Parts: sequence; structure tokens; C-alpha cells
Amino acid sequence: MSLRSEIFEQPEVIDRLLVGQAGVAAELAREIHRRDIRYAYFAARGTSDNAARYAQYLWGIQNGLTVALATPSLFSLYNHPPRLKDALVVGVSQSGKSPDIVSVLAEGRKQGCLTVAITNAPDSPLAAQADFVLDIQAGVEQAVAATKTYTSSLMAVAMLSQALNPQGVSMEELEKISGWMQFMLEQDELIERTAQRYRYMEQCVVLGRGYNYCTAIEWSLKMKEMTYLLAAPYSSADFQHGPIAVVAQGYPVLAVVPEGKVYADMLGLLRQLHDDKQAELLVISNQEEALRLAKSPLRLPVDMPEWASPLVSIVGGQLFAYHLTRAKGYDTEAPRGLRKVTETQ
Amino acid sequence: MSLRSEIFEQPEVIDRLLVGQAGVAAELAREIHRRDIRYAYFAARGTSDNAARYAQYLWGIQNGLTVALATPSLFSLYNHPPRLKDALVVGVSQSGKSPDIVSVLAEGRKQGCLTVAITNAPDSPLAAQADFVLDIQAGVEQAVAATKTYTSSLMAVAMLSQALNPQGVSMEELEKISGWMQFMLEQDELIERTAQRYRYMEQCVVLGRGYNYCTAIEWSLKMKEMTYLLAAPYSSADFQHGPIAVVAQGYPVLAVVPEGKVYADMLGLLRQLHDDKQAELLVISNQEEALRLAKSPLRLPVDMPEWASPLVSIVGGQLFAYHLTRAKGYDTEAPRGLRKVTETQ
Repeated sequence: MSLRSEIFEQPEVIDRLLVGQAGVAAELAREIHRRDIRYAYFAARGTSDNAARYAQYLWGIQNGLTVALATPSLFSLYNHPPRLKDALVVGVSQSGKSPDIVSVLAEGRKQGCLTVAITNAPDSPLAAQADFVLDIQAGVEQAVAATKTYTSSLMAVAMLSQALNPQGVSMEELEKISGWMQFMLEQDELIERTAQRYRYMEQCVVLGRGYNYCTAIEWSLKMKEMTYLLAAPYSSADFQHGPIAVVAQGYPVLAVVPEGKVYADMLGLLRQLHDDKQAELLVISNQEEALRLAKSPLRLPVDMPEWASPLVSIVGGQLFAYHLTRAKGYDTEAPRGLRKVTETQ
Repeated sequence: MSLRSEIFEQPEVIDRLLVGQAGVAAELAREIHRRDIRYAYFAARGTSDNAARYAQYLWGIQNGLTVALATPSLFSLYNHPPRLKDALVVGVSQSGKSPDIVSVLAEGRKQGCLTVAITNAPDSPLAAQADFVLDIQAGVEQAVAATKTYTSSLMAVAMLSQALNPQGVSMEELEKISGWMQFMLEQDELIERTAQRYRYMEQCVVLGRGYNYCTAIEWSLKMKEMTYLLAAPYSSADFQHGPIAVVAQGYPVLAVVPEGKVYADMLGLLRQLHDDKQAELLVISNQEEALRLAKSPLRLPVDMPEWASPLVSIVGGQLFAYHLTRAKGYDTEAPRGLRKVTETQ
């Protein structure tokens, strides 16, 4: 049962990373300041792409950096890389082997950009193209579904944010994340019971916004990979512009709704889904009003800043995906048709 | 039946736009060259966001511009806009009234950026914040589901690409697009018969890559808005990294596969879906090999460059969504729970 143990390993992995890579993060931050870099260009796929989405919000809000997500086929298939002048080029890949992600970093280096690899494989082809390697030090990930490499990639993103601006994300808060994760892991039995109700769910919608847009996408990816149900993630803002039409009475909507800047807006949407559409809500939140609307409420720690919530809420999402997979009678370790290393050109 | 007439109006709308806005496009291109702008920052939601995705590929490949998609909540809810120095800031909104899109353009103007509105409402709040207005001149769009305002937004993006670099997208090709759209519209009866087979489809996957990633998202949005089925769009590259697990025997996969740089890669995926997974394929293509794998083949014109295919293939997608809506007995003009103007903060 490597998936389960990898989910439970996360607090330890995060704390190890915080100690082990603080020096690299500080040195990289100095170089970013020295070059006065204003904008970051991320190359990533699948789970790693959700770490890039986290950086869009965290680095945008806390560090004033514009973050663009690369379209790797411009580099590989179309062979027309854009001009990246003055960008920080970041590749995220646990294996460090995805050829199209490596090609973006190689192009960044060719154009004289500062290049960074966030990877679990410091000897990989991706790391070889990077000026700085943030080694997420997660240890071997046996399960095909990525869990600890996802949260540790988010942590690397948060550590760089702290190093760039200690007045934003603080070291004290970074040190608390493993404890907040533990709070989620302690709900394992509750989440196992909750998952039973969704045994025959064949599709659902997963909502998040702002910092937790990445959580919605990552959570739904875990469910698609392991339970084969079609889980469609949305920013709650985009969801209201069309896709909300899919929701009829009893339709399952899963939502990540921590206290913070997007809370009021998301609460309004949850009310609409509950009162007008009679949707069935599963809500991850630390706010009583949001939890009260849910058929299935899951609690987040109350003392946690919004920026840290993606690292914590996804732990609940991972456990839910794990228990739902078991409830449906599927194999949590070897989802059909998946490989660990992605080799898209 | 305004939706049907608006779908059929598209060739005429495109040609009118080409004549009416060529002057603005040329003037805007001169200003972009004069300022030596290297990177564009797009703000858009829903259907308009797919026009921005088209620009990511078209401007990236043909004009060497890096295109970033804005995360509007950074400007509105989080109130931490990133530094946009030297960017071309583009807002796309048919109504020109979405407050969060207007707020991105206003911030761009405040920071001294060149601002552009692509809109059907040249008197709107969005246009008021723009140095240049590309008026898509689509006329009133009655149907809630956007069709002609989508293709004319793509056309505005293509016209600016041509004005920036006439050696890439040529005026001669732009003039042919309405004829290629006509070729799709002539398949209306075939598409109506094809849609019958999918009367009871409750979920599906929609694939595109590169230029047609936007088509996959827009096509699936039309189906979600009007038929309430959960249509999940993917880049074929991302799809292989996890989500492919949802596909079992008979699972419906819709794919946009024109001749071009992504063709070989997508053909390989279609073969895998057909041979190994026994998926049911609906394919829009101008290549016999791809069409032969499909239970339901729909033909694209053969003499069309890949960059133009998003303007043409979506017409087939719109007709399919329209006929599927009728086959399922729903109202094509008034989908449940949708409004025409989106007012997210």
C-alpha cells in the first residue's frame, strides 16, 4: 500500500525539504533580485502543472511576479519558441525526464535566462539544464498517482516566495504547514466513511478559486486517475459562465473553500448551488457557514493563512480519492493505462 | 431559432470584420513594433478565454510573442496586480462589461502599458480603458451560447498576427476562411444525423492540441452549456498523463485532428484509443487515416493551413452541439441557469 504510506509521509517530507533546501532558495532569491527579474515562465505537465498554477497566485500576490504557463508544444512540435528575454524559466517534473519540459529549459538557457528545475531527480536531464536545482527530496514515489511529490513541489514554490520576500510568506508559517497537514491526516477515518456515499458517483464537478484553483485541478486529476470517474475542475468564476448548467438536483459538487479573499464569492456560489439547484455539496473549509451547506463537510485548520491552504486541503482530497478508489473496488497502486514517467514530445 | 442563424451567419461576419477592422489592426501593429513589445497579457473568461488561448499559439508561433493568460482574481479579489511593464494588455469580452476583465485593462493603463479591447461593444466600459479597440462587428448575438462572437474574436487575433508579420499569416489566407467555414456549414444534415447516435451520451472527453487546444475547450463548453453533459476538454498531451484512465470500451472521445504539426502525435493517441481502449471516436479531420479510425468522421477542408483550423473546426463543433441539444430535447436558445453578461468580481 505505497500510496497510503506516501500520503501519510507528507508532513515529514515537507519538513525535510524546508531544512534541506533553504540555502538553495536563499541563493536563488538573491540572483532573482540581482537580475531584477519581473516575470516567470513555467513548463510543467499534469500534477506538476498544478504546482505552476500555485506559483501564479503565490508569486503574483506575495512577490509581484507575473507567472506565465508555457505551452510546451511551441518548443517541441512547432519549433517556434517565443522570446523569453529576462524571464525566470522554471521546469517542474518529479522525474526530470519529460522531453518537452526539458526542451523549454534548454531554450531558456540558450536565450540567456536564469533557469530553475523543481524536481525529485537532481541527476536528471531537466536538472542538467538548470542554473539552480530545487531538489524536493521526497524520496522514491512508488505509487503511480503523485502525492508527496506534488505537495513538496508546492513547498519549493512557497520557500522561494519566502526567500524573495520574508514580509509576505513567513518562515514561521512555513514551519507550521506539516502540523496543518497532520490535522487533515487525522480525519482519515471520517473521510473513509464519507467516501462510501460516493461509491456510485460517475461524474462530478470540483471547484476552487484563486490560490486553490490548483487544488481543484489536482484533486480532480487524482480521482480521474484512480477511480475513472469524470471529475471536472473549475475556477468558481469560470464555472458560473456556462458550465453551471450541468448541475441538476443531487448533482455532486466538491468545493475547496478556505477563509480568505475568495471566500465571500465562493460562499455565494455554494448558496446558489444548495438553495436554487439542490446540488449535493462536499465542502473542505474552515468556515462554519460553508460547512453547514455541505452534505459532507471536511474541516481545515482554522489558524491557517489562505496562501498555505493548497498544501493542506489537497491532503484531504488525496485521502478522499484513495478511499473512493477502494470503495469502488479499484487498485490504488496501479491505475489502468498510466505510467510514472511522461514522455510527451 | 437565433442560435442556428447565428452559426450560419459566421462566414459573412468574418468577411465584414476583415474589411472593417483592417485599418485598426495595421495601426495597432505599428504601435506594437514601435514599442518593441515582446509579450502579451490577456484577460478573458469563458468563451473569450478560448480566443486568448488561440493567441497563445498563433502569436507565439507566427509573431514570437509570449502570451500569458491573466488570473483576474489577482486584480479584483486579491488586489495584488503583478507588474505588467512593457506588456501588451488585451481584454476580450463580447459585452465589454465583465468587471474583472475591465479591472485588468484599467490596471494595465495605470502601469503605462499599451491596452487593447477585443469586443462586440465599442461603447463598453472595457473599450473605454483601451488605447485600441478591435470591434468584432458581429451584430447583436441573441442566443445565450456564443458562436459568432467567438469566431470573430479569433479572427481579430488572426488579423493582428497578419498585420504584425504578413510573411506568416497571409491576407490571401484570411480571405479564404469564410469559404472554409461554408464547407463545414454544408455538412449540417450529416452532423444532424450523426448527433442522433449520441442522444444518451452523459459524459465525454474532447481532445485538441496546439492551435486547436482552444477548439477542444470551446466545443466542450458549448456542449456543457446546452446539453448539460459533462464534456471534459484536454490537450492530448495532458490527457495521456492520467486522465486517459477514464476511457473504457465504448467511451466517447471527440477529437479535432487537422493536418499539421500536432497531427502525427494525435494520430498515435487516436490509434491507442481505438485499438487498445476500444473507445468510440468522433473525429474532425482532413486526413483519411484519422477519419478511418472514427465511428463518426467529420471532414475539414483539405487546403487549409493548421493555424486557420480553429476558426473552421469549431463550426462543426457548434453544429454538433446544436443538433445534440435538439436530439436531447433541450432548448437551444435558453439554456438553464445562464446569463449573457458575466459579472464576476
